[in-house]
Amino acid sequence: MGEKRGLLVVLSGPSGTGKSTVITALLRRRNDIRFSVSATTRAPRPGEEDGREYYFKSREQFLQMIAEDAFLEHAEYVDNFYGTPAAPVEENMRAGYHVLLDIEVQGAAQVMAKRPDAVSVFLRPPSLEVLEKRLRGRGTDDEARIASRLAAAQREMAQAKHYTYTVVNDDAEKAARELDAILTAELCRSDRR
Amino acid sequence: MGEKRGLLVVLSGPSGTGKSTVITALLRRRNDIRFSVSATTRAPRPGEEDGREYYFKSREQFLQMIAEDAFLEHAEYVDNFYGTPAAPVEENMRAGYHVLLDIEVQGAAQVMAKRPDAVSVFLRPPSLEVLEKRLRGRGTDDEARIASRLAAAQREMAQAKHYTYTVVNDDAEKAARELDAILTAELCRSDRR
Repeated sequence: MGEKRGLLVVLSGPSGTGKSTVITALLRRRNDIRFSVSATTRAPRPGEEDGREYYFKSREQFLQMIAEDAFLEHAEYVDNFYGTPAAPVEENMRAGYHVLLDIEVQGAAQVMAKRPDAVSVFLRPPSLEVLEKRLRGRGTDDEARIASRLAAAQREMAQAKHYTYTVVNDDAEKAARELDAILTAELCRSDRR
Repeated sequence: MGEKRGLLVVLSGPSGTGKSTVITALLRRRNDIRFSVSATTRAPRPGEEDGREYYFKSREQFLQMIAEDAFLEHAEYVDNFYGTPAAPVEENMRAGYHVLLDIEVQGAAQVMAKRPDAVSVFLRPPSLEVLEKRLRGRGTDDEARIASRLAAAQREMAQAKHYTYTVVNDDAEKAARELDAILTAELCRSDRR
């Protein structure tokens, strides 16, 4: 590490695509990846630690950081702010680590606009039919929830073309191998050397 | 094979970089690659077969093919023409094979201008010092020849920035792994899906 600047990797994918399984498999393949930790104004839950699950901020601190352009992206959900602080990402990249942002499509669009050097990857299910089967298989969502998730997935999948790469998750190990190859190839780009 | 169009891969690198060792290692890793066979007006040597080492053409045939824009690139050396016929490349790609063109920098520039979808990779030695050592180690060139090869390598290495990727050959297996990753990543590009 340290000799070479790491990559900023933006990863998005509809709920139910199996993103976390793929990320786990990717982290088993490479030890030069760090996760970005988000900042939030919501209260810590029992067991959560500042700087591990989230950076916990007051509303005033968060608004101050927005004013200072200290976020790669941010958004407000259900009265709470969430965002990706730029400074720790930059530190890790400078230390030679690739920083992975697991982020939804609007946030990803903000990051890509701000950081054209980011490597963007959209992880998608083989088809909406397969996604529906997976969502039903989890058994956690009722019909209305499944329909809403499928509609969201369809909207998100229309954004795949804005990502440099699209990886189809028909097999988590294969998807992780492709993500691994994408990082290796990006490091070989003449305009990064 | 067949379901998906293959990639056109342009590979260049100075003499003595160890390109053929890297290519051999790459072919051991993937069985979906085909080599492009060049056309030439020079006479076949004993044991050479039309369509294997070269497509052997008369000067008239070759000039006719130039007139028909049937080459991805062509050049004249020591009174003989050499070129890459487009048709067999296209056929292999359509059958789902990636076609590798092992080609010097001028020819590569012609291909890249004609085929912006080509994946271009420049293979370089870790340094000119290492290249010099390798050329001397081969024991086949005299001092004047080595000096001329090094000057050519320096000129060619200045062209690396025109290739999308630059792979440093400090280890043939590692370089083959990187080439392999480049193909895998390119197949994941959203604009190719």
